[in-house]
Amino acid sequence: MITLTTDFGLADHFVGVMKGVILRINPEAELVDISHEVDSYDILDGAFTVAQSYRFFPPGTIHLVVVDPGVGSARRPILVSAANAQFVAPDNGVLSTIYEREPDAQVRHLTRERYFLRPVSNTFHGRDIFAPVAGWLSKGVEPGEFGETITDYVRLALPKPRRLRNEDQLRVEGSVLKVDKFGDIITNITPEDVPELFSAAPPPFRIIIGGREITRLCQSFSEGGPQEAFAILGSSGFVEIGIHRGSAAEVLDVGRGAAVVLEVRTMNDE
Amino acid sequence: MITLTTDFGLADHFVGVMKGVILRINPEAELVDISHEVDSYDILDGAFTVAQSYRFFPPGTIHLVVVDPGVGSARRPILVSAANAQFVAPDNGVLSTIYEREPDAQVRHLTRERYFLRPVSNTFHGRDIFAPVAGWLSKGVEPGEFGETITDYVRLALPKPRRLRNEDQLRVEGSVLKVDKFGDIITNITPEDVPELFSAAPPPFRIIIGGREITRLCQSFSEGGPQEAFAILGSSGFVEIGIHRGSAAEVLDVGRGAAVVLEVRTMNDE
Amino acid sequence: MITLTTDFGLADHFVGVMKGVILRINPEAELVDISHEVDSYDILDGAFTVAQSYRFFPPGTIHLVVVDPGVGSARRPILVSAANAQFVAPDNGVLSTIYEREPDAQVRHLTRERYFLRPVSNTFHGRDIFAPVAGWLSKGVEPGEFGETITDYVRLALPKPRRLRNEDQLRVEGSVLKVDKFGDIITNITPEDVPELFSAAPPPFRIIIGGREITRLCQSFSEGGPQEAFAILGSSGFVEIGIHRGSAAEVLDVGRGAAVVLEVRTMNDE
Repeated sequence: MITLTTDFGLADHFVGVMKGVILRINPEAELVDISHEVDSYDILDGAFTVAQSYRFFPPGTIHLVVVDPGVGSARRPILVSAANAQFVAPDNGVLSTIYEREPDAQVRHLTRERYFLRPVSNTFHGRDIFAPVAGWLSKGVEPGEFGETITDYVRLALPKPRRLRNEDQLRVEGSVLKVDKFGDIITNITPEDVPELFSAAPPPFRIIIGGREITRLCQSFSEGGPQEAFAILGSSGFVEIGIHRGSAAEVLDVGRGAAVVLEVRTMNDE
Repeated sequence: MITLTTDFGLADHFVGVMKGVILRINPEAELVDISHEVDSYDILDGAFTVAQSYRFFPPGTIHLVVVDPGVGSARRPILVSAANAQFVAPDNGVLSTIYEREPDAQVRHLTRERYFLRPVSNTFHGRDIFAPVAGWLSKGVEPGEFGETITDYVRLALPKPRRLRNEDQLRVEGSVLKVDKFGDIITNITPEDVPELFSAAPPPFRIIIGGREITRLCQSFSEGGPQEAFAILGSSGFVEIGIHRGSAAEVLDVGRGAAVVLEVRTMNDE
Repeated sequence: MITLTTDFGLADHFVGVMKGVILRINPEAELVDISHEVDSYDILDGAFTVAQSYRFFPPGTIHLVVVDPGVGSARRPILVSAANAQFVAPDNGVLSTIYEREPDAQVRHLTRERYFLRPVSNTFHGRDIFAPVAGWLSKGVEPGEFGETITDYVRLALPKPRRLRNEDQLRVEGSVLKVDKFGDIITNITPEDVPELFSAAPPPFRIIIGGREITRLCQSFSEGGPQEAFAILGSSGFVEIGIHRGSAAEVLDVGRGAAVVLEVRTMNDE
């Protein structure tokens, strides 16, 4: 089984061509699209997408992740082998979330050209390197066959929230990771950052985002009133800002990267 | 075989995650996308989409339909078993078209949590309930295993045209069900509503929509002149308004829900 | 294996229905989407898309290509059998690129209605003719079973660049074939049109497009400076105009069909 995550979009022939290349190598491969609408050239958006999805797939799944603004430059193609999943991608940080979650993963520099489509172009390594390597991997070629282990692979620092605690208040300064299709605003704040908020008796809090103040935490979207922005624990494990049957991103006029501040009153130390 | 119809879009990881969940339960499942671009939260649009497609699939196909604005509220998850197809969906009316066409179908409330992904979130039942149930169903688990039969499931009244017949005229007051990718306007009027129009010698008629009058019925799109709006019997079995190589919805400035009046001269009673 | 290329978009039920029709005939068929975002009614865009992708698929693959503004008119449905691939499409020129590349292909008029879905509508031959024929073909029905060979099929003249050579200059007048998802401008000029430019020591040149002059040829996108438009040999084998991490089409305000002039100084004859 091979999943595909790219910023290629679905209008062009790029994704179809990658699938053809894989299937010509291994006609038995089962292909599953994660998303081809990663923001163009946006490595962190790709890293977020693959982190959200890979652990739901069967053990042994191969994840092809092609967000590759540096295609044709010196950036290396890599293969990352974790306990239950493998990843084929450019070495530009798009797998940073995987290194975090799979600390024992082995990273290899893909150098064996016999597993590439030749001649290798300078503009479409998805077709010429990543897809064929995934195809051969799915046919049972051993990871070690594709190249040597490396340790100096690129790790990007993912934006983490900053926690400031004083006597009676916890302040968390985070940012917006993504806006989803429904206009829900996914922040980078997790319950671990503010355990108080997800306790049995949550104290008063406020979230400041887009110049607005939010003071309600809902358990489900349908609890919200019309046009009311509220906080909610999203399915990805992050605090989200949502509006029932509406777009919080539109109402708050907020996008990727915007600042989010969460303040909660606390009485006792952690 | 499992089909997927949702309002999740293709940009986020949601659809890919649902597929991963299904394939981890049943790696042999064959997955087919119907549409993930159902209008956000639009239950009737989802009901239309599934009604248009399910009968073309092989007997035994499982249809996963997730348009779920009430996720996390008291609305129930259900399984609908018809003679040749099964449907897994929230009980919010998104299967209303199925109840109409499959009057003998059995409806069950999904209550057996052993078939869910746990813990069940309050925001993504597509991942936590509907996908795993479809996966287990495709593995051969009997419908009766998932929960008890219910009869008080939600049926939405689909917008039906109103027929007004007087001595020498039939007037049908309908509405626009959908605008398709080409800008064709799909009304809710069928040949059964105006059999005269589809007889061997159709009488004069007029359709009033968007402040314009349409008096021509074409057999195929290519009969139409440049920029000419005409009526045509569409592939879904409804009267459509189209323009050859153009967008009727744009030219008439008409969208979902707009009023359509069809008047046809009649001589004899039905 | 069956690929699908259409202008149906992914929002409607059209593509899902075609897949259902194929799978009801042959549940073992493996379906791969190339693109469903061919520009509406745009036969040349469809021809470009299928030409770019078909040769990457395994021998024996069936390619379903439905860009069909003349559906329901006298235009014929056809089956094109080449050495390693078959194509099912309307006879409107959408396979013109295939006739060019596969001169020995046999073209048949699809006339055997037993392989159609009946009754055949006048508006959706993708569902009623092309999908079922592809399904039966994938089940092993011989091409000759579907209809007689024809030779008067529609061939569209694809826009070719014009080469004007004088004593010390080669001038190539081309046009824009397509703008891809990244905003890269794909011209119809190939290295064969300007071999000088792709020689070991390329002479000075200029490309005039959108009122701008481009004088740099890059080997990879990442060589370009911020907002700098440059020429590059694209993965489809055409000269492209690109901008590193940016949209050349937006910056140059240029779209499909726009004129491109390339002038290169030459010393010797070809």
